[in-house]
Amino acid sequence: MKLMRLGDAGLERTVVRVDEETYVDAADLEALFFAAPQEFRQAVQARITAGQVRRFAGERVGAPIPRPHQILCIGLNYRDHAAETGQAVPAEPILFTKPPNTLVGPYDDVRQPRGSTKLDWEVELGIVIGRRAGYLDDHDAAREAIAGYLVSNDISERAFQMERGGQWSKGKSAETFNPAGPWLVTPDEIADVSALGLWLDVNGVRRQTGSTATMVFDPYEIVRYLSQFLVLEPGDLINTGTPPGVGMGFDPPVWLAPGDVMELGIDGLGSQRQTVVAAR
Amino acid sequence: MKLMRLGDAGLERTVVRVDEETYVDAADLEALFFAAPQEFRQAVQARITAGQVRRFAGERVGAPIPRPHQILCIGLNYRDHAAETGQAVPAEPILFTKPPNTLVGPYDDVRQPRGSTKLDWEVELGIVIGRRAGYLDDHDAAREAIAGYLVSNDISERAFQMERGGQWSKGKSAETFNPAGPWLVTPDEIADVSALGLWLDVNGVRRQTGSTATMVFDPYEIVRYLSQFLVLEPGDLINTGTPPGVGMGFDPPVWLAPGDVMELGIDGLGSQRQTVVAAR
Repeated sequence: MKLMRLGDAGLERTVVRVDEETYVDAADLEALFFAAPQEFRQAVQARITAGQVRRFAGERVGAPIPRPHQILCIGLNYRDHAAETGQAVPAEPILFTKPPNTLVGPYDDVRQPRGSTKLDWEVELGIVIGRRAGYLDDHDAAREAIAGYLVSNDISERAFQMERGGQWSKGKSAETFNPAGPWLVTPDEIADVSALGLWLDVNGVRRQTGSTATMVFDPYEIVRYLSQFLVLEPGDLINTGTPPGVGMGFDPPVWLAPGDVMELGIDGLGSQRQTVVAAR
Repeated sequence: MKLMRLGDAGLERTVVRVDEETYVDAADLEALFFAAPQEFRQAVQARITAGQVRRFAGERVGAPIPRPHQILCIGLNYRDHAAETGQAVPAEPILFTKPPNTLVGPYDDVRQPRGSTKLDWEVELGIVIGRRAGYLDDHDAAREAIAGYLVSNDISERAFQMERGGQWSKGKSAETFNPAGPWLVTPDEIADVSALGLWLDVNGVRRQTGSTATMVFDPYEIVRYLSQFLVLEPGDLINTGTPPGVGMGFDPPVWLAPGDVMELGIDGLGSQRQTVVAAR
């Protein structure tokens, strides 16, 4: 199942994608998706069977989940990316956060913050949590706590992140810094979450190419691990780290500027396209 | 005005404290507090004038604000605390975060996480944001964006924070790690927010004594500064750092254990009392 949210920012309604051209309206079922996923699925299937489908008509696509309780991010989680930056592979997942109001749709503009000089991209596999979860015992329990996956762009301002005093959040938190979607894809549609190709282009030039196969900590381990330190809530988003090819990694570095276009995607999870604009 | 929330966890309703014994019910006005604060104030005043007051009857006191969009924290923000720990005074505010679901009431138990060996306390002045705020121009604009202040206990697990790989959030995020309240006090009731005494006792022994006068960055500068990096939302909580006397600072260090009792307070903002219990 592929969940989407359509409509103007702040007014999106949940729908389920049927195919490239059609969807089922599920606005009235939204609360069921996390609370009673089987009921949600059955109700949607009944509508498809009854022919209650609509055609996509150019409406804005929002992030596939409403503003979450928290956005957690794992740093330096690809072996080849760690090698590329000359850093050691971490012994435990590195955790940092983004404010929930950074979440925007997959085709929305990304705003370069005032004073930004080192704006960067990061294609990432995003995990969406399905149920309240603390102290998960093992990977099976973690798997059951996952509602689905999505494409996430963990936009970063490297000067804010690394040159403005302590901790990374300062460079991860500006408005529009977390494009997500276009779809939340439920786990049953993904054969192997540890064998997904990821890619990102800037202005048509391929910059990132990778596979979740080179993750240091896989999604189940990330969810299990985080649940030892905090309580995950339904709808929480976890960005799982980025493969090689971020702007910071080039010599000389490549930074984004207004007018630049990012396109990015993950096998089976769809693709995004954002234009960089100046901060308001 | 002193806002409180009374009732069982998750079912609290907003009230306004009149004096030690009485309050006005404001559950039906809650949405106005941030959206139309003058209307909120007038409606509450009308109820007081009409004698519509009730007596406190031993109900649980929750955090004075609902679960916020984000909890931001400033690190190492007291000159005397920096000196105590032998660290340099930061040139810019250090930012880290806590998940919103760490928020609990001022008298709720604090749960020691599984595997915790270095559980610590931090009395802090909490700022509650009143309106959506980005790119605030100056301290006057920051002042207008503040809805009020409260007592916050920024509970920390130092081993998780510093010995488990990168970034502080890992040690700041466990359930019950942010007792807040008992009151949100509006700025008109505070003569000088930069001259408030803070204190914290553990098992009746005074451990922290300080004054907001020794803050490196005062509340207006913190709000102005953060608004350059992210968008603040109504109800967001900012913990502004802790004065000298945390457990980590003693030689040998002093760590909390189940059965320990913390009592803490700030001039004019009331006091808290928590018992440490083992994680569930």
